[in-house]
Amino acid sequence: MSSIHTIYEELCTFVRQTAMIESIQELLGWDERTMMPPAAGEYRAEQMTYLAGWVHQRRTDPRLGGWLNELTGSSLDSDAHSPSAATIRELRRDYEKSCKLPQSLVEQLTRACVLGQQIWTQARKDNDFRSFQPHLQQIFRLKLQQAEAIGYQDQPYDALLDDFEPHARTADVADVLTGLKDQLTPLVATLVDSPRQPDASLLQRRYPIADQQAFGRQVAESIGFDFQRGRLDVTAHPFCAGLGPHDCRITTRYHEHEFPMAFFGILHEAGHGLYDQGLPPEHYGLPPGSYLSLGIHESQSRLWENAVGRSRSFWQHYFPHAQQRFPEALSGVVLDDFHFAVNQVRPSLIRVEADEATYNLHIIIRFELELALLTGDLPVGDLPGAWREKYRETLGIEPPDDADGVLQDIHWSAGLIGYFPTYTLGNLYAAQFYHQADTDLGGIEDMLARGEFAPLLEWLRRHIHAKGRCYSAAELVVDVTGRSLASQPLLDQLRGKYLPLYQG
Amino acid sequence: MSSIHTIYEELCTFVRQTAMIESIQELLGWDERTMMPPAAGEYRAEQMTYLAGWVHQRRTDPRLGGWLNELTGSSLDSDAHSPSAATIRELRRDYEKSCKLPQSLVEQLTRACVLGQQIWTQARKDNDFRSFQPHLQQIFRLKLQQAEAIGYQDQPYDALLDDFEPHARTADVADVLTGLKDQLTPLVATLVDSPRQPDASLLQRRYPIADQQAFGRQVAESIGFDFQRGRLDVTAHPFCAGLGPHDCRITTRYHEHEFPMAFFGILHEAGHGLYDQGLPPEHYGLPPGSYLSLGIHESQSRLWENAVGRSRSFWQHYFPHAQQRFPEALSGVVLDDFHFAVNQVRPSLIRVEADEATYNLHIIIRFELELALLTGDLPVGDLPGAWREKYRETLGIEPPDDADGVLQDIHWSAGLIGYFPTYTLGNLYAAQFYHQADTDLGGIEDMLARGEFAPLLEWLRRHIHAKGRCYSAAELVVDVTGRSLASQPLLDQLRGKYLPLYQG
Repeated sequence: MSSIHTIYEELCTFVRQTAMIESIQELLGWDERTMMPPAAGEYRAEQMTYLAGWVHQRRTDPRLGGWLNELTGSSLDSDAHSPSAATIRELRRDYEKSCKLPQSLVEQLTRACVLGQQIWTQARKDNDFRSFQPHLQQIFRLKLQQAEAIGYQDQPYDALLDDFEPHARTADVADVLTGLKDQLTPLVATLVDSPRQPDASLLQRRYPIADQQAFGRQVAESIGFDFQRGRLDVTAHPFCAGLGPHDCRITTRYHEHEFPMAFFGILHEAGHGLYDQGLPPEHYGLPPGSYLSLGIHESQSRLWENAVGRSRSFWQHYFPHAQQRFPEALSGVVLDDFHFAVNQVRPSLIRVEADEATYNLHIIIRFELELALLTGDLPVGDLPGAWREKYRETLGIEPPDDADGVLQDIHWSAGLIGYFPTYTLGNLYAAQFYHQADTDLGGIEDMLARGEFAPLLEWLRRHIHAKGRCYSAAELVVDVTGRSLASQPLLDQLRGKYLPLYQG
Repeated sequence: MSSIHTIYEELCTFVRQTAMIESIQELLGWDERTMMPPAAGEYRAEQMTYLAGWVHQRRTDPRLGGWLNELTGSSLDSDAHSPSAATIRELRRDYEKSCKLPQSLVEQLTRACVLGQQIWTQARKDNDFRSFQPHLQQIFRLKLQQAEAIGYQDQPYDALLDDFEPHARTADVADVLTGLKDQLTPLVATLVDSPRQPDASLLQRRYPIADQQAFGRQVAESIGFDFQRGRLDVTAHPFCAGLGPHDCRITTRYHEHEFPMAFFGILHEAGHGLYDQGLPPEHYGLPPGSYLSLGIHESQSRLWENAVGRSRSFWQHYFPHAQQRFPEALSGVVLDDFHFAVNQVRPSLIRVEADEATYNLHIIIRFELELALLTGDLPVGDLPGAWREKYRETLGIEPPDDADGVLQDIHWSAGLIGYFPTYTLGNLYAAQFYHQADTDLGGIEDMLARGEFAPLLEWLRRHIHAKGRCYSAAELVVDVTGRSLASQPLLDQLRGKYLPLYQG
């Protein structure tokens, strides 16, 4: 008995130390993107590669296997959702996956992805897909090798998807996304064809950056982001990074004549940040203190950005504040017009700028393409053409060039294959969670209209954040909402908001 | 032959990796002081302690001893000032010192100093020396143990001094400082008693912070600080940190009604930064790519801050720019009054705010006190009284309380005993180097007056920066200036500037 506890402590201490090195990696990455002088990049890559090698070595340390063998099936492993059982189960899963990857493949992938991102950056700048093509081919080839090394049940994509959305299966994801697409496409068509359209130009008036910063910070703080345990900075590509149990840093970007970009960017990243800050710090570095999946992480950002931040109730409370903060842009504007403007639906070329409804169509395109690239059904050389075709089919528009087409996202160049669907999974989880919270709390809208965010945050803390990785995402959704993940709640939410807006 | 080179490569690779971990420590430290959210401090201390332990382990790795044994006396060790010989010699020195320190003492010291700094911070705030006293006693006790473990020739202080100023001997430093004090005291008295005094109040007019930032950055850039390889940020306690071969970060602090603090702070830290940026990047992490000593480092900051930045020639060029930048404060002010104001000499209580002439008297006080504390001649309990007495004797003033007296510096609480004299050594080196550069370049003043800093920087790069740790500081001074370190050049420089200013 005591010996099992001693082994468990040894395991946890070792894993916490690995997490500490990973938290240092996070700092290196955050600094690289926010603060680092330009010429320091090469050495930073060396520092990060060195730490990555060290982490991989620790993640495959045979002692882990020994401890986990002793612990599996022990008294600490009996109650499936307890912190200790989750720790044993999830660490075992991670360990077995890590051990299947040969060191040489890890190194090849690291190099290919570092190089891939550099080449991609230049190719995007030059609008030159062909210079990127061989590197992308190499990356897909290596990722297929990774999938083969790890193993899978139905298809190689399963193994890659699992890195971002553990336990998820390609076939299930495809089912949900196809169902969503089938109903989303006519909905978007209805909205786009409606004679009633918002005047979104009012969001392109002058919004001084210092005021955007102050307003964004104020709202982030009032939804519960703790600046004692976090920061907000500026980067070209917004992100949220956890650098320790009490150190969560979010970023955004500002444009003086573009209100939604920074504001909803802050809400989005603060949503990620609230999840990070809500994970139990006493379990930091262990599965019960870690986020569950990228889909669940994204559900938190989307919930705050869209279900909360683009609701009429939210602006009922905040629009007067916004008018005070931005008198030049907003005096004379009425709440309903502003609310309609921040909910404009319009097919567009760039994923990160897409609205809440069409966003998922961008994701579905990427999911279908990367699946075909991985199986080899689509040769990498044919990708730009396939991209244009998908956009024409799905969104009715076509990119004028590859820079704003197939080269717009960093993901593939960085080896993040199987990542895209987690964005839409996040939207689906968010809608289902929000619906449940609304039921449990007896109506959230009134709270939002009063600027009261604590009950919703408390609900999320209790039902999602506090659980870390003690459940799988599929289990969590059932546990919290009583049903499996489905596309209906999101479709209901979108219809419930957009049809009244667009049909007046 | 080939085997010796292979061993040398192994050694260098290992040591460069250690330096990489140290560069990551530097990032953690920089971030802690500039960016980190308040609640993240505890975990940051854990991260830093973990890396420190890892570095110590690497610095005492027996393989180092093996490689160094093979290399000592080999063909690579033959030419004393060559990069390879310097690498072998200096690494051997570091290794032997590190091995003499028992792990338990290292850990006790780390803990005592982390705790010491926390207690000191609070004690200073509360003006309560007594709460700090037992911790300071403990630190001096442990530092004495450290000195005994390392060994020394004449006295324990030698062993501590060596951490900051390698090869320096307490007796030699005491000789130079005593000589300096004997001549500095009457010089300061002459200046203070002079009927002609500057109007320093013009430096306390309104200098908008954004303009101070822009002006400071402009000047730092024009003396040669490379912002592609560096940054300038704001902190309560200014510093310069090297985070990699192309990543040097300096900080300063601003006060709207205080021009010199930020401006000369920037020049000072940029001077450190120029040294850091001038070290040969190809030797980064090895002795030929490392700074020589804290005294030499300080010589570079002092040279730019004082010999350059407080010279009349410098302001001949920059005063019109300053007037343009700060019209409210400086229109109507004449160059000579401004130059006199930035060269005010006045005994004061706070070291970091002291002028160029009295600064060294603050250092000498600390040197004498820490020497007496270490030998036990001065019990820690008597320190506040001894401090007040020294200030009365040396500077003719006495602190009203301990917060502005004995508690003003962080050094002792952080275990930095033997560090203070390097500040004055820096001033002495700076004067001697500047004098030599002036001779070699045929007069620097004209260049400064034209805003031409490149020749001086080139001279420093060639004679000092490029040499890394290939010479000892004592050797370098002789090599560069043809004579040993002496107090005369600094005294000449101070007399040459101050007597004409104060005697009109």
